Amino acid sequence: MEAYLDNSATTCAFARVCDIMMKTMSEDYGNPSSMHSKGFHAEHYVKEAREAVAKSLRVSDREILFTSGGTESNNLALIGCAMANKRSGNHLITTVFEHASVGNTMRYLEEQGFRVTYLPVDHEGCVSLKALEEAICPDTILVSVMYVNNEIGSVQPIEEIARIIRRKKPDVLFHVDAIQAYGKYVIRPKRQGIDLLSVSGHKIHGPKGTGFLYVRDKVKMKPLIWGGEQQRGMRSGTENVPGIAGLGEAVKEIYKDHEARIRKMYELKHLFIDNIKELDDIVINGQPIDQGAPHIVSVSFRGVRSEVLLHALEEREIYVSAGSACSSNHPAVSGTLKSIGVENDLLDSTLRFSFGVFTTEAEILYTVQVLKELLPMLRRFRRS
Amino acid sequence: MEAYLDNSATTCAFARVCDIMMKTMSEDYGNPSSMHSKGFHAEHYVKEAREAVAKSLRVSDREILFTSGGTESNNLALIGCAMANKRSGNHLITTVFEHASVGNTMRYLEEQGFRVTYLPVDHEGCVSLKALEEAICPDTILVSVMYVNNEIGSVQPIEEIARIIRRKKPDVLFHVDAIQAYGKYVIRPKRQGIDLLSVSGHKIHGPKGTGFLYVRDKVKMKPLIWGGEQQRGMRSGTENVPGIAGLGEAVKEIYKDHEARIRKMYELKHLFIDNIKELDDIVINGQPIDQGAPHIVSVSFRGVRSEVLLHALEEREIYVSAGSACSSNHPAVSGTLKSIGVENDLLDSTLRFSFGVFTTEAEILYTVQVLKELLPMLRRFRRS
Repeated sequence: MEAYLDNSATTCAFARVCDIMMKTMSEDYGNPSSMHSKGFHAEHYVKEAREAVAKSLRVSDREILFTSGGTESNNLALIGCAMANKRSGNHLITTVFEHASVGNTMRYLEEQGFRVTYLPVDHEGCVSLKALEEAICPDTILVSVMYVNNEIGSVQPIEEIARIIRRKKPDVLFHVDAIQAYGKYVIRPKRQGIDLLSVSGHKIHGPKGTGFLYVRDKVKMKPLIWGGEQQRGMRSGTENVPGIAGLGEAVKEIYKDHEARIRKMYELKHLFIDNIKELDDIVINGQPIDQGAPHIVSVSFRGVRSEVLLHALEEREIYVSAGSACSSNHPAVSGTLKSIGVENDLLDSTLRFSFGVFTTEAEILYTVQVLKELLPMLRRFRRS
Repeated sequence: MEAYLDNSATTCAFARVCDIMMKTMSEDYGNPSSMHSKGFHAEHYVKEAREAVAKSLRVSDREILFTSGGTESNNLALIGCAMANKRSGNHLITTVFEHASVGNTMRYLEEQGFRVTYLPVDHEGCVSLKALEEAICPDTILVSVMYVNNEIGSVQPIEEIARIIRRKKPDVLFHVDAIQAYGKYVIRPKRQGIDLLSVSGHKIHGPKGTGFLYVRDKVKMKPLIWGGEQQRGMRSGTENVPGIAGLGEAVKEIYKDHEARIRKMYELKHLFIDNIKELDDIVINGQPIDQGAPHIVSVSFRGVRSEVLLHALEEREIYVSAGSACSSNHPAVSGTLKSIGVENDLLDSTLRFSFGVFTTEAEILYTVQVLKELLPMLRRFRRS
C-alpha cells in the first residue's frame, strides 16, 4: 500500500477543486476585467471565492487579497508593510525559526536598512514572550510570527503575542504566517488581534500557485507587483480565476466537519506516536501531542541518517520529509531543529510525518510496521 | 451563434492544458522540492515545461523563470534589473504606450529615484527610433519596449532597437514585453538581441496565473520574491506544477503549424477589415493590415460610444474589448489611442477585435453582419 505522509509539503487537490478549475478554463474562461458578460461571469467566481475566504475568517471581503501562493503572501505582508510604514520606524521582529519565505524576506529587508530582531524559541518550539516584550521599542513597526511551525508543528501563543503588542505599542502591525495552521485551527483575526495573515492554497487540498493575504482594513501596505490595478491596486495582474475559484472550493471544503476531522487527526497522531514510542532510541520533537498541531510529527531516529531512512521508506511507498520540503536547497541541516536545541547527532536523523484530510489509520499502521522492520536493519549498518 | 473576439484579453485553454493540470493536481501532485519520488515526478513536469519553453525561443533551460503571469514577469524584469544595476546608472527608457504592468512599474521606479524616458510613437503606433537614439545616455541601464501593442496590434522594430542599443551603449539591457507577440511571431532572443522577454500563459490558450521570463545568461537581476530559493533563488515559492505543466503544453501547441495558423489569422483579418470598410465613418487604427499583428484589429466608429456598441454586440453574443481589458479600471480613456493621435471624438468610440487559434471565418462574417445591422441603428440615437 501507499502512505502519503508529506501533507505539510503539499496535498492532492479536492475533486471539487479540479472540477471548478476545469470549468473556468474551458467554459467560463473570461477575463474579470472584460466589460462583457464573459468578464462578469469570471469576476463572479473571484467574488464568490473571496466571500468564502472572508467568511472562513469572519472578516470583510475587502480585506482579502489573492496572491500566487504563501511565499508571495508573506513577501507582500513584510515588504509591503515595511516600505509603507518606514517613516514610523525601521525595526521588525520575527522568530529564529520562521519559514524561508519570512526568514529570507527579513534578510532582504535588513539589506534595505531595516533592523530585525530574531526572537529565540524554547526546546518545545515556542517563541519567548519575554524576549518579545523586551524587543518592542519605539522604532518597531511590525512583528511576524508563524502560527504553526512547519517542521515540528509547534503552535505559537498568537493571542498572547497580540496582547503584548497592544500593551507595549499598539500601532505595531502583527503578521501571522498561517500556512500550516489554516484549515487546522479556527482563526479569527479580529478577535485574535492579527493584522495580516498569510495562507497557501496547496497546503489545504487547493491548487498550487494560489494563496491569499488577509490585510486588516486601514493597514498601510504598498504593492509588490504593479500594473493594471486589479484587486484595488494592491495586486495587479489578471486574476488567476481558475486558481482562485479552486482555492475558494478548498476553503469551503477544508472547514467542513472541522471538529470531527481535527479529532480524527489527533487520533491518528496519538496512534502513530504511541506505536513508534516502542522503537528504541527515538525522540519526538516539539510540544506534547495535544498541544502541538494535529498534523505534524517530527521524529529523530538516533543512528540513522534521515536521507537513508526517507529513501528506504519511499521504497515501501511511504512518503515523508527530511525537515521541510519547502526549500529547494534539498538536504541542508534544519535551522528549526537547531533552534529548539535538538542534539547535534540527531539533526541529520530527523523526519517529518504530516497528515492531511485523506490520511487513514491503515496508512499510519503500515508506516509504523515498516519503521519497525527497517530501523534495526538500517542501524546495523551505521558507523559505530 | 457566439463570436469570442476578445482573445487579447484572455483565451480558453487547450484541452491538453486542462488534461495535464488535472493529472498534476490529483495524481502527480508532489512538491518538486520533496526528496522522494513524488517530488521527483513533480519536478519532471517542471523540467519538461521549461525545456519546451526554452526550445520555442532557442535558448537554454537555465534562462527561463516561471512566474505567476505576464504582470509579474514585467515587474521582475524591470524592478529586478533596475535594482541590481543601479550602480551603473539610474536611467530607464520605455515608450508612452506600454501596458500598465510596464507603465505603472516604471512610475514606481521613478519614486525609487530612477529617471525614466517615455519615447513617443507615431500615428501607426511605432516607437520613434530617433528619440531612442537621442535618449540613450551614459546613465542608461535598461530599455523596455513591447513587441506588439495590446490595443492596436502595432509591431515594434525590435531588431532595430537592439541594434541602436548595441551601437550606442552595448551594456544597456533590452527587455521586451512579448505578451501579445509570443505564439504569433517566431521569437529568437539571441538573434534579435533581446536580453529579457516576458510572456503570459493565458494569452496563448494556457492557464491563467502562469507566465515566464526569459533572462539571458549573465544578466544581473534581483528577485522580487524571497523564500525557499526555488528556481535558483530568482523566484522563490513552491512551483505551480499544474500551471507550469499546463503552460508547457500550451507552448508546445501554440507553435504547431505556426505558418499556416498565422496565414489563416491574416486571412481572417483581411476578411474582417475588407468587409467593415464598407461601413460609413469608421477608422482602422494602427499599421497597414500585413504590417500589424495578425490577431488585433482596432476600429473607431464615429458617433457611437464604445461601451454602447460593446454591449449591443454582447447581446448578440459577440465579445470584444473597449481598449484593453487588462486593466481593472474599466472604462477610462485609452492612453494608447491618444498616443498615436486618434481624434478626440473617436477616443471613446473605439473597439478592439482580437482573434485566437479557434477563431473562425463564420465568427468574422457574423460579426460583420451584426455590425452592419447595429451601427445605423445606434447612430440614429447619437447626440447631434
